[in-house]
Amino acid sequence: MPLVTLTTDFGCQDWFVGTMKGVILGLQPRAQIVDITHQIPAGDIFAGAFALAAASPYFPEGTVHIAVVDPGVGGARAAIAAQTRRGYFVGPDNGVLSLALAREQVVGIRRIENPRLILGEVSQTFHGRDVFAPLGAHLSRGIPFEEVGPEWGQSVCLEFPPVVQQGGCWQGAVVYIDRFGNAITNLTRALPVLARPEGVRVRVAGREAPIRLCRFYQQERPGQALAILGSAGFVEIGVAGGDGSRDLRLRVGDPVWVESGESAGVPRGGGGGGRQG
Amino acid sequence: MPLVTLTTDFGCQDWFVGTMKGVILGLQPRAQIVDITHQIPAGDIFAGAFALAAASPYFPEGTVHIAVVDPGVGGARAAIAAQTRRGYFVGPDNGVLSLALAREQVVGIRRIENPRLILGEVSQTFHGRDVFAPLGAHLSRGIPFEEVGPEWGQSVCLEFPPVVQQGGCWQGAVVYIDRFGNAITNLTRALPVLARPEGVRVRVAGREAPIRLCRFYQQERPGQALAILGSAGFVEIGVAGGDGSRDLRLRVGDPVWVESGESAGVPRGGGGGGRQG
Amino acid sequence: MPLVTLTTDFGCQDWFVGTMKGVILGLQPRAQIVDITHQIPAGDIFAGAFALAAASPYFPEGTVHIAVVDPGVGGARAAIAAQTRRGYFVGPDNGVLSLALAREQVVGIRRIENPRLILGEVSQTFHGRDVFAPLGAHLSRGIPFEEVGPEWGQSVCLEFPPVVQQGGCWQGAVVYIDRFGNAITNLTRALPVLARPEGVRVRVAGREAPIRLCRFYQQERPGQALAILGSAGFVEIGVAGGDGSRDLRLRVGDPVWVESGESAGVPRGGGGGGRQG
Repeated sequence: MPLVTLTTDFGCQDWFVGTMKGVILGLQPRAQIVDITHQIPAGDIFAGAFALAAASPYFPEGTVHIAVVDPGVGGARAAIAAQTRRGYFVGPDNGVLSLALAREQVVGIRRIENPRLILGEVSQTFHGRDVFAPLGAHLSRGIPFEEVGPEWGQSVCLEFPPVVQQGGCWQGAVVYIDRFGNAITNLTRALPVLARPEGVRVRVAGREAPIRLCRFYQQERPGQALAILGSAGFVEIGVAGGDGSRDLRLRVGDPVWVESGESAGVPRGGGGGGRQG
Repeated sequence: MPLVTLTTDFGCQDWFVGTMKGVILGLQPRAQIVDITHQIPAGDIFAGAFALAAASPYFPEGTVHIAVVDPGVGGARAAIAAQTRRGYFVGPDNGVLSLALAREQVVGIRRIENPRLILGEVSQTFHGRDVFAPLGAHLSRGIPFEEVGPEWGQSVCLEFPPVVQQGGCWQGAVVYIDRFGNAITNLTRALPVLARPEGVRVRVAGREAPIRLCRFYQQERPGQALAILGSAGFVEIGVAGGDGSRDLRLRVGDPVWVESGESAGVPRGGGGGGRQG
Repeated sequence: MPLVTLTTDFGCQDWFVGTMKGVILGLQPRAQIVDITHQIPAGDIFAGAFALAAASPYFPEGTVHIAVVDPGVGGARAAIAAQTRRGYFVGPDNGVLSLALAREQVVGIRRIENPRLILGEVSQTFHGRDVFAPLGAHLSRGIPFEEVGPEWGQSVCLEFPPVVQQGGCWQGAVVYIDRFGNAITNLTRALPVLARPEGVRVRVAGREAPIRLCRFYQQERPGQALAILGSAGFVEIGVAGGDGSRDLRLRVGDPVWVESGESAGVPRGGGGGGRQG
């Protein structure tokens, strides 16, 4: 069945998400609709982009991904759709699609301008219902991608914060905090220092003691900080049986350092511009 | 595929909603089930009715809408089903269906009394699972509507608070606050004063300055109050990039005034029986 | 359509649940996936087991139930699947399946070891995505159960706290608190004292006055404590129109006594080792 996913900051308390699904199923009754999440913090485009990029590789070919974290709705930002080798991505051109598209082979990006593919009356405040849901439904029905609208060459791309190497040490940053309080960083498992995970240590601002890189959570005693090569492909920092970001006072943007077991040149916690404790 | 929607105050933390879906899919394996919301505040019949009425027009013909906000479960209130030109509505007769039905052409309303269309053992506390889910599933299978039970002529209707005209000014009230903190009023876009939106001003109790009617949120600077003709068809009051109901201290029931650009006769904030600031 | 349910503590704010669904639908495009709940408190295996056991009997034959409350992920605990007369249950072997299995006729339990039925690269932290989702999808496709892996004879079973009879009085305990604040106990409707519900009284620690067993919530005045033979088959304690566990200060583990109308031998509240008020 044609698969459509939704990623939004609409929450689940109102009728917004259900209404989008009504629109989709009215146009494509065979659609299978999957919620990635609707709990993106209101207006947090980066968090929406990160969630979509983490989930979309696990969906089969042909999936249509709709992402709506759209504080600029009704204003000048474009509405776009992208075709990739594996599927389609639909949303506002504010970067919310960009981290997922960076993992795909993009065939083309078009601006949504065809009035026959969106609702007849478009509100200024709910393009999820009036623009993105119907457009995604039409794509899942197999319309030619060219019908979406004109090509769009200038789409907004979000960037991860830079990863900086200092001798045997790499500095990255917390980019997302999940439901369990794990602080996910931009330090990927592809870093040379992580090729030999044994002995690798992780440091965070405001904490003297290094954090051990473990293979799974219960490798540390309850209450102990630990780092993991997480399921999204990044170094994550948590607390065994606890809430890492709360217990370690980590927030998005905080610096994180990784060093190999042999290295000794890592900056001490607190020396890297982190938050006050 | 047969479409069934659910609107409840059951929340998502327990097994209540999932269990209803199990019952529905046991009777109608081809059902496509859409959650409108399960986060209606516990027992808030009006909020449930409002959410259902906002979402249901966007679903295709033949959809079966089940709404269960039912503080009187097990007591004397009737269980009903309504057939309209566009679909079916199933729930307790406490008004939760009424705002949606007011937008439909109702063909008939019947009391649910046919024991063959509900579970064999009916609890006194979970008619969502035992009565409304199976009845809705049977309707989606196409049983004749007459089999539901006897006609029911006295169903409970909720009313919006009255809209009162005072010269060039209309007084309404906040009726719903959404996830973003937008305060949705009962002032519809059909009001004469809103035919020419330019210059229209909105006032709320406890605030001297009028609020500008905008076309979209980013038309105001972050932190500024603004009003919108919202996607549900009503005037909404919010704060650009903020939480309107929190920042402006608005609650359901608070009075709201709209006046045209030319008018000068609007009561000053605080004079209309609003909450203490 | 093949039915798959999900019960987890993953919450809905991240991409975890959506990703599991992508994996399932990639392997079994016809799957109908139902969320029982994803709001189990993080790591609360008993709550997950209770929710699954309450919901699973209402699903049709052949349903595949996947439950992932898995604080030991990546460690020594086994990953298992059970075949019963009515369907399949998949999850970690930590007891999360056990309360549901106690209500089923179990045909066999096997350890998940077949690498062809799980993802090629298995993370140490997200077996929901890498092990349980694909295994469940394969079961819903009808693979022979024997292919899962070797038989597993030692699976972990959770137990309800004991119910102790003292004359005409039975002592049980609160085992789950639901979204409405109802405190669900382990005292089932099968208890002899509940065969004649009239006059039955319920007592809780720290409260002198007995609580009346009612048939439905509105039988008591708003604000009054009441007990119900709840929809999950257990005595529940609530407050009419209120939040029972908050108003009566009840928590999981607190003792609860039921006595028949004729009995007089019930211990007074506070005498049974309950919490301090």
